[in-house]
Amino acid sequence: MPVREMIDDYPAAVHIDRAALAATVELLGECAQACTACADACLAEDSVLDLTVCIRSNLDCADICEVTARILSRNTGYDSNVTRVQLMACVQACIAARDECDQHAAMHEHCRVCADVCRKCVTACQSLIDKVD
Amino acid sequence: MPVREMIDDYPAAVHIDRAALAATVELLGECAQACTACADACLAEDSVLDLTVCIRSNLDCADICEVTARILSRNTGYDSNVTRVQLMACVQACIAARDECDQHAAMHEHCRVCADVCRKCVTACQSLIDKVD
Amino acid sequence: MPVREMIDDYPAAVHIDRAALAATVELLGECAQACTACADACLAEDSVLDLTVCIRSNLDCADICEVTARILSRNTGYDSNVTRVQLMACVQACIAARDECDQHAAMHEHCRVCADVCRKCVTACQSLIDKVD
Amino acid sequence: MPVREMIDDYPAAVHIDRAALAATVELLGECAQACTACADACLAEDSVLDLTVCIRSNLDCADICEVTARILSRNTGYDSNVTRVQLMACVQACIAARDECDQHAAMHEHCRVCADVCRKCVTACQSLIDKVD
Repeated sequence: MPVREMIDDYPAAVHIDRAALAATVELLGECAQACTACADACLAEDSVLDLTVCIRSNLDCADICEVTARILSRNTGYDSNVTRVQLMACVQACIAARDECDQHAAMHEHCRVCADVCRKCVTACQSLIDKVD
Repeated sequence: MPVREMIDDYPAAVHIDRAALAATVELLGECAQACTACADACLAEDSVLDLTVCIRSNLDCADICEVTARILSRNTGYDSNVTRVQLMACVQACIAARDECDQHAAMHEHCRVCADVCRKCVTACQSLIDKVD
Repeated sequence: MPVREMIDDYPAAVHIDRAALAATVELLGECAQACTACADACLAEDSVLDLTVCIRSNLDCADICEVTARILSRNTGYDSNVTRVQLMACVQACIAARDECDQHAAMHEHCRVCADVCRKCVTACQSLIDKVD
Repeated sequence: MPVREMIDDYPAAVHIDRAALAATVELLGECAQACTACADACLAEDSVLDLTVCIRSNLDCADICEVTARILSRNTGYDSNVTRVQLMACVQACIAARDECDQHAAMHEHCRVCADVCRKCVTACQSLIDKVD
């Protein structure tokens, strides 16, 4: 994924640490995809009635990770207030999806994989928040 | 737009004031569309070089309003933490787009209209945050 | 919703009939919201096991309507090939959601409302395809 | 990116070739991110007035790639009609962004990188269309 390459080709100032930015954008893409796929896999389980909150958390997390990746992929007119609080929203959404998926991880491998991606995403976003100013 | 009708047809508990929820979801849809159209109209201006920050703020605002409308359109597995902080992110994005568009409102009617929609969206989201618990 | 106002404020040529364009963009926004809300309402039904295909169709339809509305909200660098085939994809997604929701309309009011919005959206998109060139 | 792992953990039938599906979903994510970043980098160029069509094509391509990746990430209630025509829309959007970026590739490295990702995405989507039935 040429995330870092695109950052390095940006023709003006980049306001956040490039390595952390690139790593977080990549993780957000992974997390969005895993959550979309996990929601769909949950829908296909016979026990879907027990997985409805998990599906909802996955849908939110996919939506919020995608939009957070977009915000972070833009450097023009950088606004630290928007960046910071969108990252905070992303942390909450990833925590919610992680906690729901963790509850079903022993039964469903897709939940186990998804919980792990969400966990990495929480760490990356929290760490990036400290670099926003 | 059948936003309120869909809320009233939801088969379980709705955790936020229905009138405020419906009004905010409608405004978020208007704001996302106006910002997408304003970014595109700015691109078509001869003075686009002076409008690049406005375009970026519009793109962020469109993305964040759309995802916030999605979060608010879901009631299953309601998570007040995700809802609250995503609304806070939306307020920041709408403020950024409003302030940029306000600066160009005298020159560009699309910026004037967009700034007004953003302004209404800021008020609606701020008011809804107080109802989230 | 100031969709038509934003079209009229666009500073260069608009390549599709303005009234049809504005009406379709508004309907796409309604349809995206209704489908997101219907998927969530289906998730909250005790009979969710019978509604999983409906949920999936709703999720696709919400995603595709939103992106189609974005494409139609942009006039700069108008590309009739992208516009036409994205409208065709939107017709298919709305047909799929309409047909699924129609099957559950007698049982679930949210499916009945959603099917009606999808039906209007199919007609609007099909009609707009004939105006794209 | 655990795309293939999530496909293999899906608890019911997968209707498209798994390797091709996983490779395409990954490429769509890369392409969406590269197009978002390229649009933003174009905005920051002094020659932005010459890049407005490129920016628009990038924005469309980012939107359409993201939604196509979502459609492909869902297996429940698989609908070959929606899948096929959404892939066709994605091919058109990637061709448009590729052709615009190719025109500026000699001047702007971000356009060169983005054009290459779009090119791969065109090939992957065209190849996947043949596998949809």
